[in-house]
Amino acid sequence: MSITPSVPPGNRPEEPALDFSVRGQALLGQEMFKVLERAKKIEEAGAFVYHLELGNPRQPPPRELMDQTLGLLGRGEVGYTYSLGLPVLRQAIAKRYSERLRCPVSEHNVAISPANLLITQFLDLVCNPGDKVVFFCPAFPTYWASASYIGLKVESIPLDERLGYDLTDADVDRAIASGPRAILVNSANNPTGAVYSQAVLERLARLCDQHGIWLLSDETYADICYGRTFFTMATLTYPRLAVMSSFSKVFSIPGFRTGYIIAHPQMIAKISLSTSTLISCLPTFTQLGCAAGVNVLDRYTASVRARCASVMMQCGEILGRCPGLTYSLPHSGFYIFINIAATGLDADTFCWRLLDEQHTAVTPGNSFGVDYRSYVRVAICGRTEDVREGMRRLVAFVETLLPATAVPV
Amino acid sequence: MSITPSVPPGNRPEEPALDFSVRGQALLGQEMFKVLERAKKIEEAGAFVYHLELGNPRQPPPRELMDQTLGLLGRGEVGYTYSLGLPVLRQAIAKRYSERLRCPVSEHNVAISPANLLITQFLDLVCNPGDKVVFFCPAFPTYWASASYIGLKVESIPLDERLGYDLTDADVDRAIASGPRAILVNSANNPTGAVYSQAVLERLARLCDQHGIWLLSDETYADICYGRTFFTMATLTYPRLAVMSSFSKVFSIPGFRTGYIIAHPQMIAKISLSTSTLISCLPTFTQLGCAAGVNVLDRYTASVRARCASVMMQCGEILGRCPGLTYSLPHSGFYIFINIAATGLDADTFCWRLLDEQHTAVTPGNSFGVDYRSYVRVAICGRTEDVREGMRRLVAFVETLLPATAVPV
Repeated sequence: MSITPSVPPGNRPEEPALDFSVRGQALLGQEMFKVLERAKKIEEAGAFVYHLELGNPRQPPPRELMDQTLGLLGRGEVGYTYSLGLPVLRQAIAKRYSERLRCPVSEHNVAISPANLLITQFLDLVCNPGDKVVFFCPAFPTYWASASYIGLKVESIPLDERLGYDLTDADVDRAIASGPRAILVNSANNPTGAVYSQAVLERLARLCDQHGIWLLSDETYADICYGRTFFTMATLTYPRLAVMSSFSKVFSIPGFRTGYIIAHPQMIAKISLSTSTLISCLPTFTQLGCAAGVNVLDRYTASVRARCASVMMQCGEILGRCPGLTYSLPHSGFYIFINIAATGLDADTFCWRLLDEQHTAVTPGNSFGVDYRSYVRVAICGRTEDVREGMRRLVAFVETLLPATAVPV
Repeated sequence: MSITPSVPPGNRPEEPALDFSVRGQALLGQEMFKVLERAKKIEEAGAFVYHLELGNPRQPPPRELMDQTLGLLGRGEVGYTYSLGLPVLRQAIAKRYSERLRCPVSEHNVAISPANLLITQFLDLVCNPGDKVVFFCPAFPTYWASASYIGLKVESIPLDERLGYDLTDADVDRAIASGPRAILVNSANNPTGAVYSQAVLERLARLCDQHGIWLLSDETYADICYGRTFFTMATLTYPRLAVMSSFSKVFSIPGFRTGYIIAHPQMIAKISLSTSTLISCLPTFTQLGCAAGVNVLDRYTASVRARCASVMMQCGEILGRCPGLTYSLPHSGFYIFINIAATGLDADTFCWRLLDEQHTAVTPGNSFGVDYRSYVRVAICGRTEDVREGMRRLVAFVETLLPATAVPV
């Protein structure tokens, strides 16, 4: 390797680019982690930064979950385990879906893996390079990163901002008509907070089945809906349909890197082989911690929902004072997707200047699709006072940018 | 998804195979995790199993590492962090390599990722499907799983059992002459315990550089050499050379899923994007735990080496009573690679029967290459008494298989 003791990572000007593979050259990563890295540099220089860029919840996780995890770690439970995931956790998930949510799910339909990894695992298991995949947009950055890495053609179907980014039958028709190999659907949605209706989701799944299209339903924010009733596609039984979710958001433990997929046993077997190939297995202590958490999930997420709804209302009040900004009221999740077109800045410039000038980190809209260069995503799951101050700083920053006529007198 | 409440995972006979991608169809996984799963089933039925299949060390991890990890978890450090890995850990690794091992390594040459994932990350970043990769054999199962998944042609170069599976100049010449895109080299070796000489490794790296071949040096067992002096390729500086290692074995924490790669800054930047795409980032608590461990690594691994050397000697005594079995004395690591040709059984049959009849789990040799169907790998890093009893059971099982003439009188 070439050593650069005093040079930052990256290319030295005189050094030619190394010959990476097609996949290596196509890597995008996730933009909000780049924002986080710049924010951390500001913090290292001694300043305080308001972190509204990542869905990094700051509520304490359920006590039962942490007690179990700490107890296991303290007793030295640090060995290897099943690639498929621990039976206790898979059974707890199956029980929740079959008994509480009345879905036809058994443990043989469940595999454990980091939720973010499941996106690439699913797409790589069903798509070949050059295949077409549909995203309803705006769409979560990892979808784009994963599609670019695998070499997929993305059919981007923009949802109507004026309809609150709801998914309509016309959107579904357009998706099917584009002839994709796979479709990703994300209700409750990140970044818009939209929650799609049972009717439209059932129709999407039925049409995918009829056309032999693979369908991944990302339901990470299912338990954090405070506006509309959530419908889980795990109630449906099609061989090419998979449902995935994460424990990161519902238990405020993104650092545990634990999620799950519910699917046909053939897909579950493939996920197990994929996990074995890529990361061998997940830790025992985090999995059994999550299993303990599943028992108290309803109680815990009730408090998360109440807090989100309250913070969202407070943020709405702050944003409401700034006529230059528009957004759709979220019905779920941690995020507000804000239209900043009136500022005249593109999202990247807006985000870097907001970070440098107001020490407030948000995610540029173009992370969610190239058509969203005049949007930013704000995450409201941090400490409430920090979120409020970050929102105030965002509004103050916007007011310096708006033409005088648009500023209220 | 199709639901099979009372049917085990896998295909029902009447159900056609789903249309997975080329990569999906090519998945192999790691055989020893399948052995683990069968062993766990026997345990669930109430029997005790001697686990000699996985390199799953049972020594308590360093106290400093566990105290740090437990302290951070107890304080709720469960958020997202850098995709590249925490600077504190990257700096600790760079300091160890630059000061203790006198390698020209700075933190800008270090990325954190699960070690098993780094194998696929590296191969996928530098190879396209159809490219050729060289493995010196027998070779670690993830290399095969990863190559099959990516679609690489493997040039398998068998090392000479009579030379203790040492790497020779002739092996290196053959590797280079095969015209590969990449070569994987693994000293100290899993499964043979061989430790290659500085001269042959330096020559390999120089020839790879001259021919523009990417080279990954897997040094997971570097600190567990008790026979020969280990040479780290991190002393060398070629742009296409990367060194990877794991904290799983040196700290007895496979469940932490934490490793690192030392490479050119361009490769480090790609690994960061890859980690961001695949798993976002690693936990903070495990990374800072490992950083605390690096400070006591030499003291801790001294005790691991002493224990390995002692257990290895005890196992040698047990094996020595069974003339039907041959093996090369390991100079490093946790493993003995045993030639079972005299039993007349292929490795899969041997392993499944040993597990079912003697409740002793070992890994079939064909996990390390198709040419090793008459070998098994035994891991000796479990509880010493269990390892000894497992070895005794293996020998007892072999004695039932050997022709009467081969049994000592």
